[in-house]
Amino acid sequence: MRINICQNNYDTLAIEGNKDKIKQALLQSENNVLNIFGEFSLSGSPLYNKNLYNDIYTRVNAAGDELCMTQKSFIIGTPSKITAQQDGVPGEGEVKEEFYYNSLVFVDRGEVKALATKRNLGRFDDNYSVGNGIEVVEFEGKRIAFGFYEDIFNFAQRKTEVSCVILVSNVLFDKDYADDIEKDLSSYAKRLNAPVVFVSRTGAEGNFVYQGGSFFMNRNGEVIRKLDEFEEQQVLIDTDSYNEGKVLSDNEYEKRIFLACVTGIRDYWRKSRIKKAVIGLSGGIDSAVVAPLGVAALGKENVIGVLMPSEFSSLHSVDDALQSAGNLGIEHYTIHIQGIFEATKQALAPLLSPQDTNSYDNKELSAVTNTDTTEENLQARARCMIVMAFGNRKGAAMLNTSNKSESAVGYGTLYGDDSGALGPVGDLYKEDVYKLARWINKAVREGKLKEYFDYDGEYLIPLSSIEKAPSAELKPNQKDSDTLPEYEVLDKIIKDHIENHLSPEELIKKGYNEKDVKRILHLYGINEWKRRQEAPALRLSKTCFATDFKINY
Amino acid sequence: MRINICQNNYDTLAIEGNKDKIKQALLQSENNVLNIFGEFSLSGSPLYNKNLYNDIYTRVNAAGDELCMTQKSFIIGTPSKITAQQDGVPGEGEVKEEFYYNSLVFVDRGEVKALATKRNLGRFDDNYSVGNGIEVVEFEGKRIAFGFYEDIFNFAQRKTEVSCVILVSNVLFDKDYADDIEKDLSSYAKRLNAPVVFVSRTGAEGNFVYQGGSFFMNRNGEVIRKLDEFEEQQVLIDTDSYNEGKVLSDNEYEKRIFLACVTGIRDYWRKSRIKKAVIGLSGGIDSAVVAPLGVAALGKENVIGVLMPSEFSSLHSVDDALQSAGNLGIEHYTIHIQGIFEATKQALAPLLSPQDTNSYDNKELSAVTNTDTTEENLQARARCMIVMAFGNRKGAAMLNTSNKSESAVGYGTLYGDDSGALGPVGDLYKEDVYKLARWINKAVREGKLKEYFDYDGEYLIPLSSIEKAPSAELKPNQKDSDTLPEYEVLDKIIKDHIENHLSPEELIKKGYNEKDVKRILHLYGINEWKRRQEAPALRLSKTCFATDFKINY
Repeated sequence: MRINICQNNYDTLAIEGNKDKIKQALLQSENNVLNIFGEFSLSGSPLYNKNLYNDIYTRVNAAGDELCMTQKSFIIGTPSKITAQQDGVPGEGEVKEEFYYNSLVFVDRGEVKALATKRNLGRFDDNYSVGNGIEVVEFEGKRIAFGFYEDIFNFAQRKTEVSCVILVSNVLFDKDYADDIEKDLSSYAKRLNAPVVFVSRTGAEGNFVYQGGSFFMNRNGEVIRKLDEFEEQQVLIDTDSYNEGKVLSDNEYEKRIFLACVTGIRDYWRKSRIKKAVIGLSGGIDSAVVAPLGVAALGKENVIGVLMPSEFSSLHSVDDALQSAGNLGIEHYTIHIQGIFEATKQALAPLLSPQDTNSYDNKELSAVTNTDTTEENLQARARCMIVMAFGNRKGAAMLNTSNKSESAVGYGTLYGDDSGALGPVGDLYKEDVYKLARWINKAVREGKLKEYFDYDGEYLIPLSSIEKAPSAELKPNQKDSDTLPEYEVLDKIIKDHIENHLSPEELIKKGYNEKDVKRILHLYGINEWKRRQEAPALRLSKTCFATDFKINY
Repeated sequence: MRINICQNNYDTLAIEGNKDKIKQALLQSENNVLNIFGEFSLSGSPLYNKNLYNDIYTRVNAAGDELCMTQKSFIIGTPSKITAQQDGVPGEGEVKEEFYYNSLVFVDRGEVKALATKRNLGRFDDNYSVGNGIEVVEFEGKRIAFGFYEDIFNFAQRKTEVSCVILVSNVLFDKDYADDIEKDLSSYAKRLNAPVVFVSRTGAEGNFVYQGGSFFMNRNGEVIRKLDEFEEQQVLIDTDSYNEGKVLSDNEYEKRIFLACVTGIRDYWRKSRIKKAVIGLSGGIDSAVVAPLGVAALGKENVIGVLMPSEFSSLHSVDDALQSAGNLGIEHYTIHIQGIFEATKQALAPLLSPQDTNSYDNKELSAVTNTDTTEENLQARARCMIVMAFGNRKGAAMLNTSNKSESAVGYGTLYGDDSGALGPVGDLYKEDVYKLARWINKAVREGKLKEYFDYDGEYLIPLSSIEKAPSAELKPNQKDSDTLPEYEVLDKIIKDHIENHLSPEELIKKGYNEKDVKRILHLYGINEWKRRQEAPALRLSKTCFATDFKINY
């Protein structure tokens, strides 16, 4: 059986555009080929509440009819709406309820033959009802199973014999589990004794990045054809040719993160119809990494850097920021915030007078430190005001530079440096930000990133931004480690808590310092309210604060 | 059969505290009484990702064991974890998967007899798997059904005969559908020919408000005992006493909204362990309504008002704001923002110079107006900076004053007036804010709100704040209606779009002006990114932007 794996980047609700993309592939397809388009390929995704709109179904049905007229065979993804009835109270009529399903439609030579509805709904399957799972149909004289990847566990329990299993899923990129589906399905292919075709989408929507990397796996669980990650691609395979040449994933950790970030920024800006990005450059590691990501995604002519030194900024920091802007070749400005800071303190005289500082008792809502938080936050907020003014005037959206470690413990100012349209490294721990910085510099030196950067030197990201001790520079000689444990410890404790679900007791038992555990988890708890309003982090893991990992606050 | 309806306010993850509350009720209960505690009564809710932690189950089980030792009969709600197995590939061992359920435990005289797991999961049932729905058990020689309200549709299709149906659900308050469960269950009671007990919780968590209003309904679908809304209460009923005295709900629209807001603010502050609130007072309707809500919830000694006039503020506005603070008797300050505004414009000279304004092309990310948005936003952000400085120094959290109409079309400044810890009227359309204002004034005049306000005059909320035309006062003689359609039209179009799911075509067909529809839905679409970062609105409907109603952006 011949199957055409179509791994595309679809736009949410751009039903006509998605249909055209699908139709083009069908028109080029031979008659006995089954073309597989992914989850929500016709409607785009995520749809959120838009699946409740009648007009979506009108448009999806019209597009589907047009696709059927090609007389080709295919599987497409779309929401579907089904009305269920039951007997009511005698005399009061029957009860009708509308149910929505995340569905796949199987079309054989232009005829709709079957519908598979998703059973194991995920975190982003808003408004959908539990469906029936994987369906078995005939195609070209053979029995095939088709449905959602998430439903394979239930299907495997039925022990149905089929000659091929076709699974689709819009798998979101996860930096730490990017090969898990391959491993998982390898075990199922063997158990079911059938080859498996897995089809995902690519591109990004909002803060979601889709990995792509669709594949064909033989009944021994070996991937023998794998599509590129983060790229649109179509590949025709023959499930009967038992090629034994096992293909390995290109699973370089930092490279995948780099491509995911570039895809995420590029599609967020493109799909919002914004060309330019503006970023505050402090000379610190975070902005030094986000700036090149922005340049790689949008081009150097579309990124604007703003330096905003204060009396607490070291000369070194300003140099590093200028170096970074220079290496990238971006437009940049220096705006001094001292005047704003002074004017604000003057206006706030009734509040900031010394006799009033006793009333300071905000343990819960302040950042990490106490005495100077008011003034520290003022500086960060003045900077936000400036970057947003550039955004307004230049038609640019702000790139946020927060990382996940800071976000976890609230080491940042809400409506200050926590701001921005999208945080490309907001789902990366500090240690991952450093790894990414080093990888980018190395890759540039090796000439691997020529399509993104026009730079011949040794350190695209200034070495000093990578090597100096992290500091918010909001008071004299401040270091992050004055008020936080070292990031090495912080990252590990937070990770074990939110990814491995270790309780405080379990963390201490594992060997972490009790004081560190208590302090970090206390900060983590009281800063949830800030995380709810931070710039959405680009989702690079299943514990992204913006969309996945919440606690009560 | 005697049933004790226990409608409590539980705290999330305060398992020991919740257990103590439950235990106290059990110790006072007679042996043949079935005590019903609601959904997640033992664990609190919402748990979000915390249901994945092992230690939760250890703690819940220990608490459950202690409750069983009372030898009483009861139903409690808690998450449960079940490990499922299936055969694996020969030689590679079996496959184990962990499943989490939203569960109710039925205990008969100290013995665990049954578990009902929720089948129809809702938007906030993160991480849970689809359960089996309503269960039938014996109690005191009678067959009773117990489970989640959401599963009644499926149970009714089974046509099982029982002598009583016990349903629980942590129903979130919805201002427009506050009597729907009563109506819905009335039809089921008749169809099943059985009395129905419905148990909900009260209080608030984060931006969720729970309505309470648990009830007992006879087999004719008449409510014959109803508990108070927004209050903790326990009521003992006898399902065999067929009282025909039908009870009517106190369904005064504005009163319910008032109580929901007061409950929401009170519990948000209490559960965050913060005493004080700070609010920017503009003299406009929104802050004039939110300030008394804050006072009613936290006490006048805990609310701080900040007036921040600029050159564009009318004298009238300042008077209204002072009047409002005076009527409420709250501490208040006047901070002039002119100096900050000037210093910022000076710092931004390289950006704001006239020759540069040509490059202004931000159609997507700006607020509604074009030419002056940069300067308008600067003022709003300077005000946010000031209110947050008060928050830092005074240990207060900021009350946000945005309403749903503004939020829908992005008529507000992100990191400016869109800020705050919680937005009590953020899920109310402008027309509802006016209704609430008039109701509060009337109720105060009638002496109905003496427990909240120490005011004897005619207009607690200054009449002029209610009657003058809404204005952001960010440029000379500005009115909201300069750039937006009148709120009457705006509210109706947005409501029909997001609540009734009418597409643009359907809205125009219904009779709305085509230009208004297109303009409003365009603004609605391009401002989704701002809604994601706004202060979370207190949820008063099922289309709350903060938690329920999203579109792709």
